[in-house]
Amino acid sequence: MRADAEKNRSQILSVARDVATEHGADVSMRDIARRAGVGLATLLRHFPTREALFEALLCTNLDALTRRAAELETATSADEALLSWFRELVTFTQGYRGVVAMMAAAHTNPDSALYASCAAVHSAGARLLLRAQGEGTARADMNGDDLFALITALGWAVDQPSFAPRADHLVHLVTGAILTGRPGSEVGKATS
Amino acid sequence: MRADAEKNRSQILSVARDVATEHGADVSMRDIARRAGVGLATLLRHFPTREALFEALLCTNLDALTRRAAELETATSADEALLSWFRELVTFTQGYRGVVAMMAAAHTNPDSALYASCAAVHSAGARLLLRAQGEGTARADMNGDDLFALITALGWAVDQPSFAPRADHLVHLVTGAILTGRPGSEVGKATS
Repeated sequence: MRADAEKNRSQILSVARDVATEHGADVSMRDIARRAGVGLATLLRHFPTREALFEALLCTNLDALTRRAAELETATSADEALLSWFRELVTFTQGYRGVVAMMAAAHTNPDSALYASCAAVHSAGARLLLRAQGEGTARADMNGDDLFALITALGWAVDQPSFAPRADHLVHLVTGAILTGRPGSEVGKATS
Repeated sequence: MRADAEKNRSQILSVARDVATEHGADVSMRDIARRAGVGLATLLRHFPTREALFEALLCTNLDALTRRAAELETATSADEALLSWFRELVTFTQGYRGVVAMMAAAHTNPDSALYASCAAVHSAGARLLLRAQGEGTARADMNGDDLFALITALGWAVDQPSFAPRADHLVHLVTGAILTGRPGSEVGKATS
């Protein structure tokens, strides 16, 4: 891709991210082109449909989360890394209504445009979990599938307006089920 | 309601439940009338729209779950009651695609046709939780909103085809986060 084409593509994705955060996925391609400062034809050359644009946007975000997992793997303790990454992934899903259902379907479907990115996120989470299990700070009887299911389930819950105010606490409760060794994860568990 | 009208209504709801389990909510009113052995006019007198029929069906099921909570409250220990009811509610949501989103929205929206039934289920769960907390077998730092959010989040997860095979284990993991005192809920948590 030529440098200016690459720049246009990045600019379009950046605008699409802002627009999606403000208005959800229900926005016109014309508005996105206008805000990105490119012609509609240019936008459509990069992304022929709105679906293609939002898929590219999600892949960009998911790939960043995969890289983030690799960073955390070397930068911090295994349980802190897993906890931070779990939170970041749930926060990401809050920005994109409906993304959790796409992720749940895509990570096992090679025909999906999100497959590679979702499968990479799934593997990155499984690695973080395995590392924490190796150190004895995560429960041993769960695997990467369970982690991915719990993260997307939480993502679904915090996306429901009636549950959103409890989002942080819900993440705290579920990570408390996963992490066994950190004192923080046991807070409130001793009730007698 | 006259006795035969009541009988027709029950028969229609029973058929609708079977049909929903087999085919989801996407079935014709004509088919339901035929299988229930009533005329379409009779069906439409009881339930003017398919939406009204499925709302009534869901309310019937939710009300049964509220009664079930009351039974469990007197029949078994507090933690067993909470665990059984949690499982039954998640199993119920598996039978009705999309019901968890309706429940999450309806329990705080008095304009919803499901409001009374969802709010009653929410309260019934909160009572079971409070009883287990009183006995020291459920973590103290959560409330009925958290319980309702976790149940519906699990219901969402097990409704995703890629997570369905792990349904029982996911319920085990999340109930392990809620219940503190039962030996079973701690299995697998000691990893060192």
